[in-house]
Amino acid sequence: PYKVPLDPQGLLQLSWNVSYPEQVVHFQLLVRDLRFGLLFGMSDRGEFENADLAVLWSDGHNSYFGDAWSDAKGQLHMDSQQDYQLLGARKAPEGLYLLFRRAFSTCDPKDYLIEDGTVHLIYGILEKPVHSLQAINISAIHRGLQRVQLLKPNITIPELPSDMKTMEITAPNIVIPSQETTYWCYMAELPAGFSKHHIIMYEPVITVGNEALVHHMEVFQCAAKFDSFPHYNGPCDSKMKPDRLNYCRHVLAAWAMGAQAFYYPEEAGLAFGGPGSSRYLRLEVHYHNPLVFKGRHDSSGIRLYFTATLRRYDAGIMELGLVYTPVMAIPPGEDAFILTGYCTDKCTQLALPAAGIRIFASQLHTHLAGRKVVTVLSRDGRERQVVNADGHYSPHFQEIRMLKELVAVYPGDELITTCTYNTEDRSRATVGGFGILEEMCVNYVHYYPQTQLELCKSAVDPGYLHRYFNLVNRFNDEEVCTCPQVSVPQQFFSVPWNAFNRDVLKSLYGFAPISMHCNKSSAVRFPGEWEKQPLPTITERLREPVPHCPPAPGPRPSAPVPLNLGELRR
Amino acid sequence: PYKVPLDPQGLLQLSWNVSYPEQVVHFQLLVRDLRFGLLFGMSDRGEFENADLAVLWSDGHNSYFGDAWSDAKGQLHMDSQQDYQLLGARKAPEGLYLLFRRAFSTCDPKDYLIEDGTVHLIYGILEKPVHSLQAINISAIHRGLQRVQLLKPNITIPELPSDMKTMEITAPNIVIPSQETTYWCYMAELPAGFSKHHIIMYEPVITVGNEALVHHMEVFQCAAKFDSFPHYNGPCDSKMKPDRLNYCRHVLAAWAMGAQAFYYPEEAGLAFGGPGSSRYLRLEVHYHNPLVFKGRHDSSGIRLYFTATLRRYDAGIMELGLVYTPVMAIPPGEDAFILTGYCTDKCTQLALPAAGIRIFASQLHTHLAGRKVVTVLSRDGRERQVVNADGHYSPHFQEIRMLKELVAVYPGDELITTCTYNTEDRSRATVGGFGILEEMCVNYVHYYPQTQLELCKSAVDPGYLHRYFNLVNRFNDEEVCTCPQVSVPQQFFSVPWNAFNRDVLKSLYGFAPISMHCNKSSAVRFPGEWEKQPLPTITERLREPVPHCPPAPGPRPSAPVPLNLGELRR
Repeated sequence: PYKVPLDPQGLLQLSWNVSYPEQVVHFQLLVRDLRFGLLFGMSDRGEFENADLAVLWSDGHNSYFGDAWSDAKGQLHMDSQQDYQLLGARKAPEGLYLLFRRAFSTCDPKDYLIEDGTVHLIYGILEKPVHSLQAINISAIHRGLQRVQLLKPNITIPELPSDMKTMEITAPNIVIPSQETTYWCYMAELPAGFSKHHIIMYEPVITVGNEALVHHMEVFQCAAKFDSFPHYNGPCDSKMKPDRLNYCRHVLAAWAMGAQAFYYPEEAGLAFGGPGSSRYLRLEVHYHNPLVFKGRHDSSGIRLYFTATLRRYDAGIMELGLVYTPVMAIPPGEDAFILTGYCTDKCTQLALPAAGIRIFASQLHTHLAGRKVVTVLSRDGRERQVVNADGHYSPHFQEIRMLKELVAVYPGDELITTCTYNTEDRSRATVGGFGILEEMCVNYVHYYPQTQLELCKSAVDPGYLHRYFNLVNRFNDEEVCTCPQVSVPQQFFSVPWNAFNRDVLKSLYGFAPISMHCNKSSAVRFPGEWEKQPLPTITERLREPVPHCPPAPGPRPSAPVPLNLGELRR
Repeated sequence: PYKVPLDPQGLLQLSWNVSYPEQVVHFQLLVRDLRFGLLFGMSDRGEFENADLAVLWSDGHNSYFGDAWSDAKGQLHMDSQQDYQLLGARKAPEGLYLLFRRAFSTCDPKDYLIEDGTVHLIYGILEKPVHSLQAINISAIHRGLQRVQLLKPNITIPELPSDMKTMEITAPNIVIPSQETTYWCYMAELPAGFSKHHIIMYEPVITVGNEALVHHMEVFQCAAKFDSFPHYNGPCDSKMKPDRLNYCRHVLAAWAMGAQAFYYPEEAGLAFGGPGSSRYLRLEVHYHNPLVFKGRHDSSGIRLYFTATLRRYDAGIMELGLVYTPVMAIPPGEDAFILTGYCTDKCTQLALPAAGIRIFASQLHTHLAGRKVVTVLSRDGRERQVVNADGHYSPHFQEIRMLKELVAVYPGDELITTCTYNTEDRSRATVGGFGILEEMCVNYVHYYPQTQLELCKSAVDPGYLHRYFNLVNRFNDEEVCTCPQVSVPQQFFSVPWNAFNRDVLKSLYGFAPISMHCNKSSAVRFPGEWEKQPLPTITERLREPVPHCPPAPGPRPSAPVPLNLGELRR
C-alpha cells in the first residue's frame, strides 16, 4: 500500500506494507533497469558506512541475494544471521520485482532497528559484474538515499460525508527550474463569501512523471489582518516575491514524499473559510532536482476534501518546545547536544478543558542541526507516554505524522520536548532564533477540541544565563569577557568552548528555572506569573522498549541465496 | 585447583578451574549435608535480586537441576537458555558432589557476565521440599555470599631455587574472639643480623577447621627509623595496642580467602632484611566469625619462601591514584560517582628507566564507598592496556592479584586510575583522607626493577576548587557560604547538593589542572614543577570488549534436568 521512488530518475520503486502483529515489514522493489545487481538498505542517517543492506549481485552468469552489512570503512560483509529474507523474484515487462521481508528488530547487533519516525533508505546500482559480495566497492557505485516513515500508523479510515467537496491547490503548469533545489510559491484564493468549512482530509496531486522530483508541499493560510494578498507565482526566494507572503504561515496541509492522504479523526476537522479568516492561501512546493532536468512542466499540489456540515470539534494546532530566543544555545563541535522545552503543569492547568484534549498528529521541526526530536507526556512527575519521537529526524523531511493512537492531555499534565543537535561542522555557538543557521526545537501538535492555547513553550531564565556568563569570565584563566552590555548571541560567541564551559552550560539548562510562554495567540500570555518557574521534576522515566526478537521464522541460511535470473546483460 | 568454602560453617565447599581457550569455568560443589536442594550463583554485588542462579531442588521424591534467574523482587524464573550445564552429580561419604560448567559470557541478558576481578558468589540452602522452582522463596532461606576472584590468571609457576628457606609468620595459638569481626595484630621479629634476602613466594597457613573464619591476612614490615617495636599480640583496635605499631605499614605479603600462593616472577624478588630495613614484622589477621563461634583456637598466618641468592631485580611497590586530600570529594546520595587519579607522562619521563618497568601484580584499595577500580595505561594520548580492573570491587576483599600478563610501562606513559563510589546511604559529602568514612582511590602496583618512584598520584588544583566554592556561593539563591576561611571538608559539607552543584563538581574534576605528587619516598618530590599541571588528554579510548558468545555446546534443554538422587530425607 505504501510507495516511494528511491532515486531521482525513478528507476527503483519501493512499495511496502507493515504487519504490526508480526512486527515485520514486507518490501517490494521494482527495478526498472537491472544491470548487475543492486543494494538496498537502511542506516542511521543515510550513510553507506555501518549500514544494513540487502544485496542482489551477479557475476554475469549467476545472481545471488544476501543480507549484508557495511563496516565503518564501507567494506561489505555477509551477515551471520540472514534477516532480509527473500520471498520471491519475478521478471516482468516493466522490470524485476524483488520481494523480501524484514523484522523490525533482529537482535543482530549489525542490523538496523526499524523504529517509528524517519528511516533513511539507501540504494546503490551495480553496473559491473562482481564475483562476490566482498568485491563490491560501495564508494564507486551509483547510489543515493531516500527518507521515509517506514512504520506508517495502522489507522482505520473514517467514513467521509456525502456532501464532501474537493478543491485542488496546485501549481499552474509551471516549469521546474533546472537547479537542484527550488521552493516554489503560488498564491490561491478561496471564492468570495466562502463560509466556514472543515477540512477532513487531503492528499497529494502529483503530475505523472514528476514523482521523484516533488519532495514536499505545504498549503498555508494567510493572516486575516490583511484584506488582500498579491497573486504571486514563482520561486519563494525570488527578489520579486512580495514581502506580504511572509504573513501566510498558518499550516492547512503538509505532505512529504512517501506520505499518503491525511485524514482528520471523524469527530474533528480543520476550520477554514468564514469570517475572521483570510481567503488567501499559499502553496509551497519543494522540488528536488539533483539531476538538473530541464523544461519539466509541473502542476502538482494538494487536494483538500472539505465539508460544510461542520464536525463536532474544530481541530487546533499547538506549538510545543522552545521559545525562539538566543538564550537557548548549542556550543560548536558537539555531536549530540540536547535542549529541552517544557509545557508545564501550571500552563495546562490553566488553559486546557477539564475533559482534556486529544492529540492526533504531530509535525516535528528544527533547523539544520536537528538530529532527534521527542515529546513525552508526564503526569504527576511520571513520564507516561511518548507523544511523538523521531530518533533519525532530518530537517529535510518534515511531514505531519498521524499518531498511532490519540494522546489525551489533561489539565496539569506536562509536555516535554527534547531536541538533539549536531554542530560538529560549526566553529561558533548556534543560538536559538528564526535564521536558518540558528536553531528551533518545536513540535506542532494537531489536536481537538481547539483551545485558546496556541503556544506552550519555554526558555532558560535570562538571569541564570547571566550568572553563567559571569562564571565563564571568572573561571577561565584566558582573558575573556562575555560582557553583559553586548547581546546574548555575542556573549555566546565569546565563550571559550572548553570542556568545563560546555559541561556547565548543560548543567545550567538542566537546573535553572525557566521562563514560560503560555500564550493564547501570538505573544498574548494567559494571566499568571510565568517567569523563574521551576523545571518539571521527573521521578519516573519511561523505560526504553526492549527490542523484541522474533523467533527465527524458518531456515535462515547464512550463505547467499542463488537466484535464477538468467544471464544479465552488460 | 581453586577452592573456597562458601558458608561460615563450611557445609558448602566450592572448587573450580578456568579454561581460557574455551572461555568456560568448571565448578565442583561439595554439599556436606544436602537437605532439599540449594542455590548457587552470581550477582553484581552479592544480592539475591537480579541474580544468576543454578538451582538444585527436590519435592521430596525427585530432584531437579536448572539454570534460573531472580527478578528485582527476588522471584525465581527458569532461564530460557540453560547456561549452567550439569555435568554430573555423585554421592560420596562426605556429601554430594555437583559438577557443572558455565561459559564466561552467555549473551543471555539475564545472565551474569564473568569478568576479571571480584565475583560475588551467592548460595542458599533449601530446608523444605519445594514443588517447583517458582515456589522457592529466596528471602526465607538460609543464605549468604562469598567473594572470590573466579578468573585466576593462568600463570606458569617459576622454578624455585634449591637454597630456598621458609619462615612462618603465624598467630601463636590465639583464641578467636567470639564476635563477628576481629583484626588480630601479632608482632614478629627477624633474627638478629638477618641479611638481605628476596622473598620469592608466599602462601597461607591456615589452621585446619578455621578455613571459613580466616578472611584475610597481611604481613607488614615496620619502619626502619625505630630501633625496636613492642611484642604485641592482641586485637588491632585494642586500647592496649602500642601506637608505634602504626609505623608497620610496608606490605610484604597479603592473602585473602580464595587466593593461593603468590609467586614473584623469576627475575625478581621482594627484598627484606639487611641494613636499612627493620627487623620487625606485623601480622594482621581478619577473622570473620558471623556465627560467633566461641573458644576456637587459631595459629593461621603466612609462610614466606625466600632465598639469599638474590634475583636479578628487586621488586618494588608503587602507589597510583589519588593523593589523600579532602579536595577530592564525593557528593552524598550518588550511586556511581567517579574520581580519577593520574600518574602523568612528565613524572614517568623523569622517574622511570629507559627500559621501562614491568608491573606483575596489583592491589586495589578504597574505603567503604568504593565500587569499581580500574587503572589504564595510556601512551601518546591513546589508551593501550588495562593494568587491572575490578568492576565488582569490594572494600571487604582486597587481595594482591597477579596480572594475566606483565604490563610494560615506559618513560612518558600515563597511568590513569579511576574509582567509582556509591554514597547513596550518606547525607553529607565524603572527602578524601585516611579515615574509614573518608575515601581513597589507590592501586598499589608491584613491579620490577625497583625505582625511586614510590608514589605517582594527583589531586585537583586547590585554586580551581576555590573557584568552585565561589561559584556555588554565587549561583545558588539560597543563603550559603562555603567560605574560604574554613577547612575544605567544612566547605564541602556546606554545599547545597542540588543537581547543578553536583554536575559542576564533576565538570571541575574533568577539567581543572592537577597537583602532581611524583615522589621518591614519602613526601620527597622529584625535582620539577608539579602544580597546575594539565590533565592528560585521551584521544583514543580502549573499546569495551564485546562479549564473545560461544556456540551452543550440545543440547541445552530449557526444562529442568531430573537427577537421580533418591529420596531426600527431611
